[in-house]
Amino acid sequence: MSNQKLFNVAVVGATGAVGEQILRLLEERNFPIQELRLLSSARSAGTKLKFKGQELTVEEATADSFQGVDIALFSAGGSVSLDLIPHAVRHGAVCIDNTSAYRMDEETPLIVPEVNIDKINEHKGIIANPNCSTIQLVAALKPLYDRYGISRIIVSTYQAVSGAGSRAIDEMLRQSREILAGNPVEPQILPVGALPVKHQIAFNAIPQIDKFMDNGFTYEEMKMINETKKILGDDTLEVTATCVRIPVVYGHSESVYVELKEAFDIEEAKQLISDAPGIVLLDNPAEQQYPLATDAAGKLDTFVGRVRRDLSNSRALNMWIVSDNLLKGAAWNAVQIAEYIAIEQE
Amino acid sequence: MSNQKLFNVAVVGATGAVGEQILRLLEERNFPIQELRLLSSARSAGTKLKFKGQELTVEEATADSFQGVDIALFSAGGSVSLDLIPHAVRHGAVCIDNTSAYRMDEETPLIVPEVNIDKINEHKGIIANPNCSTIQLVAALKPLYDRYGISRIIVSTYQAVSGAGSRAIDEMLRQSREILAGNPVEPQILPVGALPVKHQIAFNAIPQIDKFMDNGFTYEEMKMINETKKILGDDTLEVTATCVRIPVVYGHSESVYVELKEAFDIEEAKQLISDAPGIVLLDNPAEQQYPLATDAAGKLDTFVGRVRRDLSNSRALNMWIVSDNLLKGAAWNAVQIAEYIAIEQE
Repeated sequence: MSNQKLFNVAVVGATGAVGEQILRLLEERNFPIQELRLLSSARSAGTKLKFKGQELTVEEATADSFQGVDIALFSAGGSVSLDLIPHAVRHGAVCIDNTSAYRMDEETPLIVPEVNIDKINEHKGIIANPNCSTIQLVAALKPLYDRYGISRIIVSTYQAVSGAGSRAIDEMLRQSREILAGNPVEPQILPVGALPVKHQIAFNAIPQIDKFMDNGFTYEEMKMINETKKILGDDTLEVTATCVRIPVVYGHSESVYVELKEAFDIEEAKQLISDAPGIVLLDNPAEQQYPLATDAAGKLDTFVGRVRRDLSNSRALNMWIVSDNLLKGAAWNAVQIAEYIAIEQE
Repeated sequence: MSNQKLFNVAVVGATGAVGEQILRLLEERNFPIQELRLLSSARSAGTKLKFKGQELTVEEATADSFQGVDIALFSAGGSVSLDLIPHAVRHGAVCIDNTSAYRMDEETPLIVPEVNIDKINEHKGIIANPNCSTIQLVAALKPLYDRYGISRIIVSTYQAVSGAGSRAIDEMLRQSREILAGNPVEPQILPVGALPVKHQIAFNAIPQIDKFMDNGFTYEEMKMINETKKILGDDTLEVTATCVRIPVVYGHSESVYVELKEAFDIEEAKQLISDAPGIVLLDNPAEQQYPLATDAAGKLDTFVGRVRRDLSNSRALNMWIVSDNLLKGAAWNAVQIAEYIAIEQE
């Protein structure tokens, strides 16, 4: 990538769990950066972060922070995105938003590069990064969708606490220590920081991620349902999700039942998954090999295993999909999108 | 229960995790016992256990251990049941077997008292106790099955380590301590003691419980599929299961999608579940109330929540079912069966 165009890049939410991974990936991938602007809330402004050996000071993100910025990556919460993205767009930046703020907006493409990169140029300044649990699901299902069509998806998730931020990780580890020491715990963060009731996450499974809607589903479940349809561009797709937080630090796992539109050969289905970009098939029951959250943590790929023909429905199969929720589920998908933008604008 | 008949009771596997709970329940329920015989492997023989203030010595279980025994509760593994149950039956005992040895045997009723107690008298000396994850599933679905009929069940489990015995609990807690201290772990027990490959269970989710079959399902998954059909007495039922071990000590959770044969009213469905014997409906999203493994631990009931109409299929609903796998999932279901036998024989 010599003689390439260099970009002024802003990272909003630079001190958060996802922001940290975005910086690491921009550095590792040697992203063509001219100037890097690290932005955060007033509370975290002043923090010093290293990038390629240089110390950078995090500044407070305001409406005026985006002058001259080419690409802005947002992961500071939905309200920050709603407040600041219009200003960034006004200043000419292409915004890659990791929050749910614009995902279902009709004018905003919702991109998983392996699935629908063809939609990226439809943006009007904003490209949305899907929800973590959606990204790994659609990435793994795309080859089956293309070959056989999919009529129904039923997914139950096993989601890591890092999806709720660093404070949730701290809480889970602290609770684990207390319980192992025989002490009582006082949950303070999970399941939802902004809601009054808290539940113990250590040595437990909490069937609530995000708030409840009137239909009895959580917002997290509705994100999986609606985003999956939007990314695959198929309103007829029937999707059901149950989202559950479990005491894992990094890596979301998903138990997925998929009903195809056509008869299929299970070995061909595995081969298609194995050949798909960004997907690693880890599926050898004889060797007890299947994806595990602890193995997926820190990796960019999505891992698929336990692929088996359903015994009750000849057009259905079951599978187990695991990926690092902070990487492919957030930071890496966003940086992938940024890389496509950089190539387009070269 | 005055002037009642008293029974000679044998507990095989008295020193195990389930055996311990069986003893506690026989004591708490004031089961009409004349003589209590505690049996185990040669390795655990000699262990002293308290029952109603009396110290009893555990003896080695052999073919001759069952003379005069009326009711024998087995939870010492499938091979022990296969070896010794024929001898116990020969001596006239009614055997309640907590292993998978006889569950699918055509002559052996597979009983969940709330579901199919009407089959109990069909036994020829052996009554099988279903798999833990099956019991809570059928107990919760029975009222819906009776009212609407069920065509399809798709279940993903979140199973506690206690289901794999006390050594698995110890391993999970030990691994948690080591990881919190920053030390490496060397998995030794899970996922399956008898298989060569071991995986870390602390802060992880392992999509393998029991060995794999050639069809890609595990034995645990096939138990759920086959036992559910047998208990509900319905071969046309379509069932799919994915069984996953998570770092919880007591209490299996299940994410369940159920397709009914008839249209239904969601409030009526909830009411039916709430009215069912042995079931507690805990379902108030506004108050963030739903069943949790940590709350179900130590309780005899099965807890149901997150009951909601499926958005993609008007005949389907989703729910979250939690129960203590050692109690309703094993010891309590077995003691309930023993209580029915005692009442029948009075």
